[in-house]
Amino acid sequence: MTERFKNQNAPFSVEWTHRLRFTTNAFSGNSPLTDIISELNPVKIIVFIDDGVLNTNPSIKPSIREWAKQTNVSCCDTISIAGGEHAKNSFEEVKKILKAINDNKLCRKSCILVIGGGAVLDAVGFAASIAHRGIPLVRMPSTTLSACDSGLGVKNGMNYFGKKNFLGMFDPPYAVINDLSLLQTLEKRHWIAGLSEAVKVSLIKDRSLFENIESVQKELLARDASSMNEIVAESARLHMNHITNSGDPFEKLEIRPLDFGHWSAHKLEQLTNYAITHGEAVAIGVALDTTCSKLLGHLDGEICSRIVSLLQSLELPTMHSELRNEDLLHGLDEFREHIGGQLTLLMLKDIGKSIEIHELDSKIIRQAIDELM
Amino acid sequence: MTERFKNQNAPFSVEWTHRLRFTTNAFSGNSPLTDIISELNPVKIIVFIDDGVLNTNPSIKPSIREWAKQTNVSCCDTISIAGGEHAKNSFEEVKKILKAINDNKLCRKSCILVIGGGAVLDAVGFAASIAHRGIPLVRMPSTTLSACDSGLGVKNGMNYFGKKNFLGMFDPPYAVINDLSLLQTLEKRHWIAGLSEAVKVSLIKDRSLFENIESVQKELLARDASSMNEIVAESARLHMNHITNSGDPFEKLEIRPLDFGHWSAHKLEQLTNYAITHGEAVAIGVALDTTCSKLLGHLDGEICSRIVSLLQSLELPTMHSELRNEDLLHGLDEFREHIGGQLTLLMLKDIGKSIEIHELDSKIIRQAIDELM
Repeated sequence: MTERFKNQNAPFSVEWTHRLRFTTNAFSGNSPLTDIISELNPVKIIVFIDDGVLNTNPSIKPSIREWAKQTNVSCCDTISIAGGEHAKNSFEEVKKILKAINDNKLCRKSCILVIGGGAVLDAVGFAASIAHRGIPLVRMPSTTLSACDSGLGVKNGMNYFGKKNFLGMFDPPYAVINDLSLLQTLEKRHWIAGLSEAVKVSLIKDRSLFENIESVQKELLARDASSMNEIVAESARLHMNHITNSGDPFEKLEIRPLDFGHWSAHKLEQLTNYAITHGEAVAIGVALDTTCSKLLGHLDGEICSRIVSLLQSLELPTMHSELRNEDLLHGLDEFREHIGGQLTLLMLKDIGKSIEIHELDSKIIRQAIDELM
Repeated sequence: MTERFKNQNAPFSVEWTHRLRFTTNAFSGNSPLTDIISELNPVKIIVFIDDGVLNTNPSIKPSIREWAKQTNVSCCDTISIAGGEHAKNSFEEVKKILKAINDNKLCRKSCILVIGGGAVLDAVGFAASIAHRGIPLVRMPSTTLSACDSGLGVKNGMNYFGKKNFLGMFDPPYAVINDLSLLQTLEKRHWIAGLSEAVKVSLIKDRSLFENIESVQKELLARDASSMNEIVAESARLHMNHITNSGDPFEKLEIRPLDFGHWSAHKLEQLTNYAITHGEAVAIGVALDTTCSKLLGHLDGEICSRIVSLLQSLELPTMHSELRNEDLLHGLDEFREHIGGQLTLLMLKDIGKSIEIHELDSKIIRQAIDELM
């Protein structure tokens, strides 16, 4: 064969910028949202909003209209999306989103703004990523959980075959606007639930955040906005730094540090038919893997108790009857199958320090469950 | 607000390698496919194959089994996919592919090998990109068209709302194996059709390829394998170089040079209900935009005739009654909407030289159609 047929390896790279902004009034004229949209300069913009946000913030629709008028942005009618895990359990909402994208003739130089909890961010993100092979997405997380954690991710997910996030893709959002005023109208359950992800990231990455959460736990329970805003901002910053500085933004490796405690959390969500929230499931999963860390001899018993106690003081669950379900252990295999290759989990050595393991004996898991129940 | 709430812009990049290999016997022990799979070292591999390839190459299934055995690759049962545009017009094939991925417990460290024409490569690629947020894909194009052109792309596409590639994403394959022996069993129509993409890329990028095609047109029509292999390899190389060296692999800009002649081609495919192949539609679209280039004063009349003559000598169509359909002009707007922003098309200045334009008068289009009919 001639030169023309020789092997060719052509490396190339694609550049992104992850943008994070904080505000307490996104739809005022002078806001980080206005700056971001002005920088992106989209042909037009469409807003999808979690119906949970609409119910508790009925003035948001006229605010969006007024903002678009003031800032001279061509904005389509706001469309509400049924919130909660339902949004990513079936393709009904995704089809509705795609139809709106087509009906409104959005192009790849338009912008999709989504305001909502993690499931709505995921469903709208999935649709935005596949329509025209990707329309720029601006996420405005409306829950503690998504503001701390999933809203910062560079991926989306849809549940399929009864498996959490079986479908999805890596596709960084154009920007994340954390409008902390949205947290104020959350029911207490959702106000608290996201703290499990803040505790998780502190355990893996940052002892000082853990100590901060401990020191303001009473304020958090009393719904003190400024304490919550500080914790959310720090958790979001750690999450974003991990993605952009760890060298593995699209998770090609076998280890996913931000998923500490998640193998059982994802399975519990499914086993309870999503009766518990992702945040609650993560609290249980973190308590379980923290206890396993102790039983495996990696973590001191007092530190283990301190961690589980913080979760409990925050009124987060650390046990669930479905932990006894034999199917729970399939969660380990599904977790491995999703990430691929060899099973790789983090266990704790200390607050802020972890170690990788490649197997987790079912006896240890059962013993940890016995301790928590 | 404290430091914690300040604006954060975090740039990051993701690296890929585009791998292209040529062979005439992929499933022999010592082949580029064997090398690629050995380098990727997947947990397991599943093969999806275009039923058109299976029909004309019935021995390929046992060859795959024998190859897997010889090379010690854990290989699931081969699954056939209904070929042709049908594969990407509905989600039936995608659902079947996802089910096979789940049933066979493929993980993100597994590998999907797809053998087929462009539509099957697209449908399998779409499923591979969304399952577990992306399972490595090795493409083995089986048609002249996909071996020259679409098989080298770093994207996939599904038709939706009756619009070509309304859905899809950018996601580079792990490797492309051009097994040129697959071209030998193509019906004449499919053997020839892909040459329209080779002519297209030569017009935009490389005068010498155009002259090569001119010089071997008789051999190509007489199904001379070595002439075809040379043209396919050169076209594939130009396509790959464009993607990896143009600085815009994920097409974030408003210009898409490889889509010369494609605005009308995509619309014609839809207007004819896919009775003409993509390659045939591209031949017509190239003839149309070449003629427009002349009518706009960018291209010399003799060169225009030379280009249209080459397409005709290759027995490619350069006209179609649906060019008279008033809906054809919507193709321009759909093309703009898909890429986004301002309409940007290439017109030819010479063979291998082009110019960008931002509007195309319908009168010029109609006049060009009159010339071609």
